[in-house]
Amino acid sequence: MAAKLSPQIDERALSRALSDFERAVGKDAVFTSAVDQASYSDLYAPADSTTHQPSAAVTPRSLEELQAVMRIANEQGVPLWTVSRGKNLGYGGAAPVLSGSVVLDLSRMNRILDVDPRQAACLIEPGVGFYDLYNHLQEQEIPLWMSLPSQAWGSVVGNALDRGAGYTPYGEHASQICGMEVVLPTGEVVRTGAGAMNNSRTWQNFRNGFGPGWDQMFCQSNFGVVSKMGLWLMPAPEAVLTLKYDFQKPEDIIWGVDVLAELRLRRILDSHVTIGTPIRVASLFSQRKEWYDGDGAIPDDIVQKMMEKYNIGFWNFSIRLFGHPAMLRQQAELIKAAFAPHSKQEFVETWWHQGEPVPKFAVHVPTVFFLNVTNWHGGRGGHTDFSPIMPLDGKQIYEQYLRTRQRYDEFGIDFYSGFTLAERYATNVNMVIYDRDNKDMTDRARKLFRALIDDSHRAGYGAYRTHIDYMDAIAQTYDFNNHALLRLNERVKDLLDPNGILSPGKSGIWPRRFREEKR
Amino acid sequence: MAAKLSPQIDERALSRALSDFERAVGKDAVFTSAVDQASYSDLYAPADSTTHQPSAAVTPRSLEELQAVMRIANEQGVPLWTVSRGKNLGYGGAAPVLSGSVVLDLSRMNRILDVDPRQAACLIEPGVGFYDLYNHLQEQEIPLWMSLPSQAWGSVVGNALDRGAGYTPYGEHASQICGMEVVLPTGEVVRTGAGAMNNSRTWQNFRNGFGPGWDQMFCQSNFGVVSKMGLWLMPAPEAVLTLKYDFQKPEDIIWGVDVLAELRLRRILDSHVTIGTPIRVASLFSQRKEWYDGDGAIPDDIVQKMMEKYNIGFWNFSIRLFGHPAMLRQQAELIKAAFAPHSKQEFVETWWHQGEPVPKFAVHVPTVFFLNVTNWHGGRGGHTDFSPIMPLDGKQIYEQYLRTRQRYDEFGIDFYSGFTLAERYATNVNMVIYDRDNKDMTDRARKLFRALIDDSHRAGYGAYRTHIDYMDAIAQTYDFNNHALLRLNERVKDLLDPNGILSPGKSGIWPRRFREEKR
Repeated sequence: MAAKLSPQIDERALSRALSDFERAVGKDAVFTSAVDQASYSDLYAPADSTTHQPSAAVTPRSLEELQAVMRIANEQGVPLWTVSRGKNLGYGGAAPVLSGSVVLDLSRMNRILDVDPRQAACLIEPGVGFYDLYNHLQEQEIPLWMSLPSQAWGSVVGNALDRGAGYTPYGEHASQICGMEVVLPTGEVVRTGAGAMNNSRTWQNFRNGFGPGWDQMFCQSNFGVVSKMGLWLMPAPEAVLTLKYDFQKPEDIIWGVDVLAELRLRRILDSHVTIGTPIRVASLFSQRKEWYDGDGAIPDDIVQKMMEKYNIGFWNFSIRLFGHPAMLRQQAELIKAAFAPHSKQEFVETWWHQGEPVPKFAVHVPTVFFLNVTNWHGGRGGHTDFSPIMPLDGKQIYEQYLRTRQRYDEFGIDFYSGFTLAERYATNVNMVIYDRDNKDMTDRARKLFRALIDDSHRAGYGAYRTHIDYMDAIAQTYDFNNHALLRLNERVKDLLDPNGILSPGKSGIWPRRFREEKR
Repeated sequence: MAAKLSPQIDERALSRALSDFERAVGKDAVFTSAVDQASYSDLYAPADSTTHQPSAAVTPRSLEELQAVMRIANEQGVPLWTVSRGKNLGYGGAAPVLSGSVVLDLSRMNRILDVDPRQAACLIEPGVGFYDLYNHLQEQEIPLWMSLPSQAWGSVVGNALDRGAGYTPYGEHASQICGMEVVLPTGEVVRTGAGAMNNSRTWQNFRNGFGPGWDQMFCQSNFGVVSKMGLWLMPAPEAVLTLKYDFQKPEDIIWGVDVLAELRLRRILDSHVTIGTPIRVASLFSQRKEWYDGDGAIPDDIVQKMMEKYNIGFWNFSIRLFGHPAMLRQQAELIKAAFAPHSKQEFVETWWHQGEPVPKFAVHVPTVFFLNVTNWHGGRGGHTDFSPIMPLDGKQIYEQYLRTRQRYDEFGIDFYSGFTLAERYATNVNMVIYDRDNKDMTDRARKLFRALIDDSHRAGYGAYRTHIDYMDAIAQTYDFNNHALLRLNERVKDLLDPNGILSPGKSGIWPRRFREEKR
């Protein structure tokens, strides 16, 4: 037992729980060694970090084993920390908020229970990875496409529950959820939406069923463990048209966002567009030392060199259109017409048609290429992201860029930012890349992060998702009526999880027994 | 005090509550006379019905008054029944499930707090009617369109909360909700989503905020009173193209639904399509006696005469496309191409372009024309609807038609049915029209309704919404794991509403104090 337990966790109770877990799910499904603990920890944490250490992991293979694990956790009062596959390294990987929690790793519950090509939906368990589902669709020749996050080794269910985003018209992943099976902290199994009927034929068709809608309550929460999820998939399009574009000057984003926002609202554009800075490109294909070896943030003239080398602008993006080629041609004409009054620059068009070989970096094919960013500084790299949500408003977005840029400079961190434009909001992903073993750098990264939270809060923008280290800090920014929503969440938490065993601290929601101490 | 109180309601406590209400919100905001009780009752109920009688109504004008009303209801243990405007007559109007409840009528909280043309969203109070919002948009020349139910004298908020449907791409009204302000039964005010931040600038932009998503929990529920709602509106389209079509034979719906379903999934069609039978048309423009005066359901040869007179098929529908004319032309070509292999029949095309006069029955202009259906039998008409949800599958839909048709014949009620096709489900609206004063007819209508519930349940289809009389019956059909979802809802109900004062029985959810007695 190398891991440092939080003072709230009783070592003997933990020990009993681990023995009981072994009896319930087998020795090969309980992981307790120092190596195990390390592999379930925050792999991007600064080297000297001692927070968020798991004491063990348990990996049930079935609903019944999952229920047994939760029963034991209740009996012994041992906190579990649920992960689907635990691969979201930028937000803490598999590591728990509360040190000493046992990671409840669902990666062995990985059955693809149903894929319905006609209704374009699937029913899957949380351990199913994007690669698994992709391979299944390929092998079975099912003409459906997934929407993927840029880094795709994680869980389909986990990503949707954490409100991940992709680049197809199905890119708001939590919005594609249709019906769940959930094990409540006390062990009872509930099915949501139309699945609440025994022989339901519409579980994956109709989200709501009858009465209150629960699906979104199990997203980013610790109210239950999702054991099955219905998810909508996109019929394979006849064609994809990619329109590549860049804005040369930082301030071009003002008109650019406004034009893109209007196109999206008019339903001419129907998928997310991510606008990123040059380091976003450079960090995928090179290391920092190839450009600059000075301290502090990379200066403007180096950024200019990146733009020249890759032949890109200050802001770079691709619009992607999916569907019948005749529709896409029409959409492309309207998009060009909307850009024409602002710039003579032309879009670079790339077509793909069904039957043609799938190009590299197609948005529906899983890749882990984006892991490259962590090599930016060399050494043992890591990153974490601060992602506030903003209105689709060019002026506000430009001001956010200026404010954020200044903070990166102030703390000497290379500016790496992007805006993912959805239907009515932009997600401003600010990536903070560091070398885990460079204490000075990780200290500055942490200070930068805190400054970004405060700045955004002052400006009225809240983060939608965050690293385990900042869950309380972000939850505290949601301060309307003395944090009324958080208090409501905690009342529900205490109702559903009276022993406080499930993912304490997730999204800043603490069960009663830890609450006072943690504030 | 003419109304018959449920035995659970204490007459003296009610009396004290009414006095306290008068002190808190003024005598002119509390309605207690027999005429008041009648006007808040179920206006389509059979004449001899004594269930669902309100004892009074109270109409707060502000958040503070609303909180005061709820405080008093808690003090006196008097149940309130929330309605926004109480105009959904087919489902019970303003009447409460539990007789003796005081109707909490929010129609005086009717401020349009914000309409943002660029973000295409509004923030409104529950008393705002579709006519109010329409007039506001017209007067302010704001280029946004609402999505409307066919009968539009009700509340915008109330309709969305009850998961109403319209005929634009924004036709799934509950899905357009973005952020709420809610008064919990204990009086505390919570804002959901991004609105949980004090100075939030994205309350109407981003649905989820951080952590569990609550908006859908306040739909069709009695967990709180929605005092403000954010709702997305559609930018006024450049054009509307209506494609009228009919299927001559009942069995044509098999291929018809399958073709429409595929078009919808391919995003060539992007709004709801309602397919209806001839009586649906006849009941708008004529009375039954003009066609037939026999007992029992109208026979096939009469239906044939309706088809001839109105020059329609057995199944009739319009596809509506909204947007840039060049896009609509392209969509129309693809739709025609999809129909061509099945039928030589042509679509009747009607174009509308921005700037042209708005035609009668435009889908974004409120109307109450559809009230005409209740004149079908003459006398004091009424109707109620049974609306199960089905997969978009032609064969299943045809079988549902056959089964339902047979039941209407069995109970001698004129067959009036329609299928509203959404993205992945169809709502099968079965309207049961009757003369309130014809006891034999209302008895048969009731028996038909029960039979339809049972048939659909056996087939695996659940209703998404229902009349106050059938809320328990529908809730009981959601029977997975011994009604686990309902039991979960009731646990949350008891947590949030410890005195059981808010809309007892809504969606079959009863607070503890009434639960045993009501089962």
